[in-house]
Amino acid sequence: MPAISPLAVPLPALPVVKGVRLGAVEAGIRYRNRTDLVMVDLPAGTTAAGVFTRNRCPGAPVDWCREALAGGKARAVVINAGNANVFTGKAGRTACKESAAAAAKLLGCTVKQVFLASTGVIGEVLPHDRLIAALPKLHASLSETGWEAAARGIMTTDTFPKGATRMVEIGGVPVTISGIAKGSGMIAPDMATMLCFVFTDAKLPADVLQAALSRGVAGSFNATTVDSDTSTSDTVLLFATGQARTPRLPEGGVARARMLRDFTAALHAVLHDLALQVVRDGEGAQKLVRIDVTGAVSARSAHRVAMAVANSPLVKTAIAGEDANWGRIVMAVGKAGEPAERDLLSIAVGGVWMAREGTVVAGYDEAPVVAHMKGREIEIAIDLGLGRGKATAWTCDLTHGYIDINGSYRS
Amino acid sequence: MPAISPLAVPLPALPVVKGVRLGAVEAGIRYRNRTDLVMVDLPAGTTAAGVFTRNRCPGAPVDWCREALAGGKARAVVINAGNANVFTGKAGRTACKESAAAAAKLLGCTVKQVFLASTGVIGEVLPHDRLIAALPKLHASLSETGWEAAARGIMTTDTFPKGATRMVEIGGVPVTISGIAKGSGMIAPDMATMLCFVFTDAKLPADVLQAALSRGVAGSFNATTVDSDTSTSDTVLLFATGQARTPRLPEGGVARARMLRDFTAALHAVLHDLALQVVRDGEGAQKLVRIDVTGAVSARSAHRVAMAVANSPLVKTAIAGEDANWGRIVMAVGKAGEPAERDLLSIAVGGVWMAREGTVVAGYDEAPVVAHMKGREIEIAIDLGLGRGKATAWTCDLTHGYIDINGSYRS
Repeated sequence: MPAISPLAVPLPALPVVKGVRLGAVEAGIRYRNRTDLVMVDLPAGTTAAGVFTRNRCPGAPVDWCREALAGGKARAVVINAGNANVFTGKAGRTACKESAAAAAKLLGCTVKQVFLASTGVIGEVLPHDRLIAALPKLHASLSETGWEAAARGIMTTDTFPKGATRMVEIGGVPVTISGIAKGSGMIAPDMATMLCFVFTDAKLPADVLQAALSRGVAGSFNATTVDSDTSTSDTVLLFATGQARTPRLPEGGVARARMLRDFTAALHAVLHDLALQVVRDGEGAQKLVRIDVTGAVSARSAHRVAMAVANSPLVKTAIAGEDANWGRIVMAVGKAGEPAERDLLSIAVGGVWMAREGTVVAGYDEAPVVAHMKGREIEIAIDLGLGRGKATAWTCDLTHGYIDINGSYRS
Repeated sequence: MPAISPLAVPLPALPVVKGVRLGAVEAGIRYRNRTDLVMVDLPAGTTAAGVFTRNRCPGAPVDWCREALAGGKARAVVINAGNANVFTGKAGRTACKESAAAAAKLLGCTVKQVFLASTGVIGEVLPHDRLIAALPKLHASLSETGWEAAARGIMTTDTFPKGATRMVEIGGVPVTISGIAKGSGMIAPDMATMLCFVFTDAKLPADVLQAALSRGVAGSFNATTVDSDTSTSDTVLLFATGQARTPRLPEGGVARARMLRDFTAALHAVLHDLALQVVRDGEGAQKLVRIDVTGAVSARSAHRVAMAVANSPLVKTAIAGEDANWGRIVMAVGKAGEPAERDLLSIAVGGVWMAREGTVVAGYDEAPVVAHMKGREIEIAIDLGLGRGKATAWTCDLTHGYIDINGSYRS
């Protein structure tokens, strides 16, 4: 069991979200003496939205969720840790179908109202008989306060449970948005993180939910990376139970956006909070790194430059060594393949501009930068000097811990 | 001083290439008690070709060589180790101009016939006065047999000197092709390696040389990666002294290609040999990894899939841990963004097909694969089952050694 990440944050108190009942149980799928199966019971009328991995070899549960999402309605989520049910062929599809059928029978709903997610080892057949055998007891134990149990039950190489919550109003009616997430390695940003589940008691149609989620993921999970390796299981699901009885949305786009402004901002804050918790638990991470890129030709270009820096092993090992090696930052900017002019480029670390206009700043004093590099949270700013495009990315350092975890553990 | 790579190969005896005189000297640019400045003297009439980094923040010597190459003629190459002269602004351009002028004066040629290359720390001004002060003694010491001295003088974090040679005929006249290279970290494949210099005594026009070099680099340096980080200094230069008095090339494209067939093959073999030596000296490398992709929709698509696997930290750490973790290979294939069908995909390690048609092979015996993983040279084969495109990439494993070297050493 690796030590808890030095970047860990405590799990916040996650309040009741009206209509959501959840919990965890030991199903013995792979781990021993810990919970590994989580169920969420959702009331009739719950709408759903989802964003999934862009990996071309997705796991069977990802295929399952994509199909289930077409209905736009949800009654349950079943999540197991320890086995990802990825690259398991026909056996994987059977495991999904039978697990969903078992949950649907308990809840009295259709199989396509059951969402599934799995995380853990790839390429081993999921022993879904154990999952199904554990479901009735799990179902009987669900409660409105089972948030921490659920957050812990979905962990794999995670060293701390991850959750976030916000309260806002829609049309004067208070609503809650709460989410849990897991993820530590195989985290790269072309879609989402490993697994993230967000719940609200707002009453919102599935298309509104999907639009809000897609926008929110772009600025949160898709702007983070631990190791550039996009998982086969990345899943972010958002459910709205409608139990808060928020008013019907106005038809007009502008009026609708105005009514949802606070909700959308709070949802994005929850997603952002959870995404950063995943990076804080990056395998072997000792430092959280924020990379702000400005002056790019477009926001898209800025994002690509920021991600090139965030994914550079040489930048990440330099940060692990507490070395403000801006030469490697220059290299990473240049390799991104985006418009960049060496002689217009400026780089700051910890707020100190150390390189400007193609060379080191005259009289550059390394002392404050050295002090910043010894901290837990590192800030890199890059100005390309070309336009108004900007973007931010988050990553962690690359340490011996990453090699230890991944050179010995079959995940 | 790190131990010599366990994947090192001995420097071959590099024979005289008619017209090429070279050597190395201690200029004290950064290192102490070792050679760090190399010069190559080339006869009048030498033609040149070059391929450079696609990094958008190239070093001053890369800019210099691109301009020099426009002339197509070369009389000298001057290379220093310890300082890359990258992101050094006006001072970097001055260093190039004055270094080339000093060499040109010694040789009685124009400054644009002097090619420059630098490798080492980024962002520090090159003390070119030391370089210039050391040039006369270096020039006086050049010899036809200075190959090993030159191969050693350009090393930075390299643990062994790198060279390759082939002898072939052009129109019945024997010619020699010999090259030296350096590189160990910041090695990624969008153009070349750090530095590689190849010499032949064939008499070939610059455009023919350039075409042969560009094709050769695509299948060698551009198909290798150590750490996905494309250097700011990558340079491959090819010089033909013409001293072997090979016959004039025929005008027709087909007749010309036929006369050059053996030469082109030998040149590609030299480039391939040198590129693999760089991977063998990858920072922290314990294993050399070959990835063959077949069945892709095109060769370009196959190359991208192969490089995605070669650059995956999770695949590379699994190999370091001697774990034939094909689940991570599936993940890396899927994240490449190229056409791939999970259920058509097959994966072999060490010649044993372990995964086929979306799941593990029935009755898969892990024993021979486990034995293969304990070796120094690892072979991964991936068949996408979609088309006839194929490609091969080479990389090394990702070990604690890489973190040690890059987390503590300012390179």
